Amino acid sequence: MKPIRIGIAGYGNLGRGVVSVLPHYPDLHLEAIFCRRSITDIPEAAHLPIFPLNTILSWKSQLDVLLLCTGSATDLPVMAPALAEHFNLVDSYDNHACIPAHYAAVDKAAKQSETLALISAGWDPGLFSIFRAYSTAILPQGKSYTFWGKGVSQGHSDAIRRIPGVRNARQYTIPSSLALERLAQGELPDFTPQEMHKRLCFVLPEEHADRSAIEQAIRTMPAYFAGYETEIHFLTPEEWQALPTGLAHGGRVLHRGITGSDNRQDLSFRLQLDSNPQFTASVLVACARAVFTMHQRGVCGCCTMLDIPPSALLPASANPFSGKIL
Amino acid sequence: MKPIRIGIAGYGNLGRGVVSVLPHYPDLHLEAIFCRRSITDIPEAAHLPIFPLNTILSWKSQLDVLLLCTGSATDLPVMAPALAEHFNLVDSYDNHACIPAHYAAVDKAAKQSETLALISAGWDPGLFSIFRAYSTAILPQGKSYTFWGKGVSQGHSDAIRRIPGVRNARQYTIPSSLALERLAQGELPDFTPQEMHKRLCFVLPEEHADRSAIEQAIRTMPAYFAGYETEIHFLTPEEWQALPTGLAHGGRVLHRGITGSDNRQDLSFRLQLDSNPQFTASVLVACARAVFTMHQRGVCGCCTMLDIPPSALLPASANPFSGKIL
Repeated sequence: MKPIRIGIAGYGNLGRGVVSVLPHYPDLHLEAIFCRRSITDIPEAAHLPIFPLNTILSWKSQLDVLLLCTGSATDLPVMAPALAEHFNLVDSYDNHACIPAHYAAVDKAAKQSETLALISAGWDPGLFSIFRAYSTAILPQGKSYTFWGKGVSQGHSDAIRRIPGVRNARQYTIPSSLALERLAQGELPDFTPQEMHKRLCFVLPEEHADRSAIEQAIRTMPAYFAGYETEIHFLTPEEWQALPTGLAHGGRVLHRGITGSDNRQDLSFRLQLDSNPQFTASVLVACARAVFTMHQRGVCGCCTMLDIPPSALLPASANPFSGKIL
Repeated sequence: MKPIRIGIAGYGNLGRGVVSVLPHYPDLHLEAIFCRRSITDIPEAAHLPIFPLNTILSWKSQLDVLLLCTGSATDLPVMAPALAEHFNLVDSYDNHACIPAHYAAVDKAAKQSETLALISAGWDPGLFSIFRAYSTAILPQGKSYTFWGKGVSQGHSDAIRRIPGVRNARQYTIPSSLALERLAQGELPDFTPQEMHKRLCFVLPEEHADRSAIEQAIRTMPAYFAGYETEIHFLTPEEWQALPTGLAHGGRVLHRGITGSDNRQDLSFRLQLDSNPQFTASVLVACARAVFTMHQRGVCGCCTMLDIPPSALLPASANPFSGKIL
């Protein structure tokens, strides 16, 4: 069987993650990486098939699935519909509130060109969505609780960096131990977002900055920090340098339903990831295989991981009966 | 929208579980229960649509999906292929080693009659299979570890009951705390089955039975107990009566993969169930909905939960975008 031919658009953390994990999937082969930066800026470029992003359309007949490894804020809303006209693709669009609009735009392009585009792959949205879907379908009378972390929140780190006097900042989101404890006690609480997570902030201030003003600005920032249990640490430049890079992440979803008179039925799904980009890359690669398989079965348009049978993510050679899966 | 019309074949623990959970799914409606026992033996029969099993074929046009709630040992291998000729169905066939043969027999019948039959629904096989499939597809270089319990193993309890001098017995399977500890330490061990579970036995002996002979027979029983950490308690008739009924169960699957040079990526899925039959019933009911949906899309033959997209288990009215799923 010929390997599935993979292209990567974007060579940041996620694109590099895909390159590093691809050798684990013998049925997939990396054909080309497309990036906007000049190739001379990428030290390892000599060992990789890297090409300028503006040459991508000339690869149309040479790729089976394209992985979009660019950002959700400005890149994917433009790139995914444009490239779905020419390629089967997978993206990791993660702006939950805007997924319906993104879906509609990509679906239109993919249906017209009879390609298949899987959007919002990853762990949330992605694996956590799958877990919430199964849990909700099976125990509709239950409640799902999603906790993120411990891990860096890019949006919250950015928000701190915009405060006057802040040189740099990193914000870790941590599940609230009190909320987890209440669930462990068997309660079925209705939490506010503020009750579920704690926010841990490391701030590198400018010299002579007003620390108490920075602290006040953080603690009162609406939506981001106000109402949350927030811990703030000011670091020296040396301490900042020593801070871990923050690629680790994780999270968990708990679903609790009651059946019969008072039988508690608890499902939980947990991820503990040393490298968020490499794990997300692994999910995207498995989804690329599923997109290839489903497109060969005649499926086209836009879809999410919820629309894909789990077996389609396995290699075509896999037999769930003979392994230890079923 | 008209509700999906549900039939139940078999009225033991699992069938009663289905009856008790069905009111939580407003898009499904219980039409008929079929059982072999005389209706006069069932106290609650007056409030239920119970009919003799041998009248089931006259219901052919009145049921959308039939749930088979009978046992895997002797009933399902005969009933599932025979009834797949007439009904869309769901069963919970759980004899892992024999699933391929069961699949083939049911597939032949269902394809001929253009029905859809989902076999081996439940949590293992079922939800655990789904978790193992996703984990293996995403981190193929990793290892999956499945732990069952704490919960009663019917097969092991039966095996003890066959020992001379034993009046009754209940065997709890418990994950080995040593094995869990090694995984928590970050190891990637190759366990023997004996290293992963501990076996806790409650035995009600006959009067004047030779307890040391019973204990010896248990500890040396090949495959069932030999090599396992086994704890044996002899109970008085009063203590036996006071033992919980043992409907609680659970288990967990851990999958650990390494990406990059040494980044540990851990996925875990855990179930803690107060009532195993009511939870398994809930899975079967969600699968009945999926079978109805997929059959309407033109799918027929045999399938497992691995072949069904997660979205097909949700009610037709559900919009994953508008809820908190995606």
